[in-house]
Amino acid sequence: MKIILIGAGGTIGSAVARELEQRHEVIRVGRNSGDLQADISDSASIRRLFEQTGRFDALVCAAGNVVFAPLDELDEQGFALGLNDKLMGQVNLLLIGREFINDGGSFTFTTGVTSHDPIRTGTSASLVNGAIDAFVRAAAIELPRGLRVNAISPTVLLEAMPDYAPYFRGFKPVPAADVALAYAKSVEGLQTGQTYHVG
Amino acid sequence: MKIILIGAGGTIGSAVARELEQRHEVIRVGRNSGDLQADISDSASIRRLFEQTGRFDALVCAAGNVVFAPLDELDEQGFALGLNDKLMGQVNLLLIGREFINDGGSFTFTTGVTSHDPIRTGTSASLVNGAIDAFVRAAAIELPRGLRVNAISPTVLLEAMPDYAPYFRGFKPVPAADVALAYAKSVEGLQTGQTYHVG
Repeated sequence: MKIILIGAGGTIGSAVARELEQRHEVIRVGRNSGDLQADISDSASIRRLFEQTGRFDALVCAAGNVVFAPLDELDEQGFALGLNDKLMGQVNLLLIGREFINDGGSFTFTTGVTSHDPIRTGTSASLVNGAIDAFVRAAAIELPRGLRVNAISPTVLLEAMPDYAPYFRGFKPVPAADVALAYAKSVEGLQTGQTYHVG
Repeated sequence: MKIILIGAGGTIGSAVARELEQRHEVIRVGRNSGDLQADISDSASIRRLFEQTGRFDALVCAAGNVVFAPLDELDEQGFALGLNDKLMGQVNLLLIGREFINDGGSFTFTTGVTSHDPIRTGTSASLVNGAIDAFVRAAAIELPRGLRVNAISPTVLLEAMPDYAPYFRGFKPVPAADVALAYAKSVEGLQTGQTYHVG
């Protein structure tokens, strides 16, 4: 398969690349690194990306920013980043990418544990992840041509604990390599409309 | 209690008014009707509303628009209405309303069955409702002063079946009066962070 991997330079993305490159052609995309560059918060940048990749079989997005801040300090602007970047960035990857994806292809997005297990400073992340879970369930039933869409919901990564441990006390971290398996299940399996929880 | 009811002229809103006015002071708010007017998609309009109401004990929002359209016809703009209106409209009611709400007060928002049970043309509604469910779970654990927040998730309303039946085949409709009970449970009970499913 020809697979486009957005966020290939990140902790999850590089583990997904290691998993999928064993069996597939992976085009690594980053904001400032990788084979090609794209900013998912900009739909024109997404369209330019697909014009460069041409047709493909699977898209994996392991990118997406949200603001983490105490609810007391969050205002409308604090939510805007997550809506424009992690949420609509991934939605737009499907809305635009569907013009370029081959029959039977798949989209695999990244959500997270906070959709159902909230943490301090995580209100925007929870909102965005809940939206992605529901978007995937809904879009799956209307996609034509055997196209599929799933999301991966990792808990906190083992590799991220030096930075994030104080926000995830009591959560059992998972190695990025385990999370990468769920992306392979989505890309190489046949399920659709699923959120795979890892951890 | 002094309760602000947004969307008081709608099918759900008028049923909620009938339920709550038996025991409380209800300020009815509509876009163009009611005791006071506000447009929840405009945060300046929300702030003007609270400057008119002054302090209050509970806010109920039974308003919020999203686009219903086949996924094939939905683009980025099609999602914008739901994000700005039903989603961020309700989020902003909390972010701004928290400055005006009394200790121990509550926010009760409206989500919907499509967050977990998607229908044709409902991708934007699903996304928005999933975001609201997750926002409520997350915001509840960070709210200060005994403030609470819940969401009500109705299935299709009996009163809406003349218009919506083709999109909800196989769904058992519920009367708005039954949905209104869940709003009373949220306002007059003590739970927080919940989505009450009705139907």
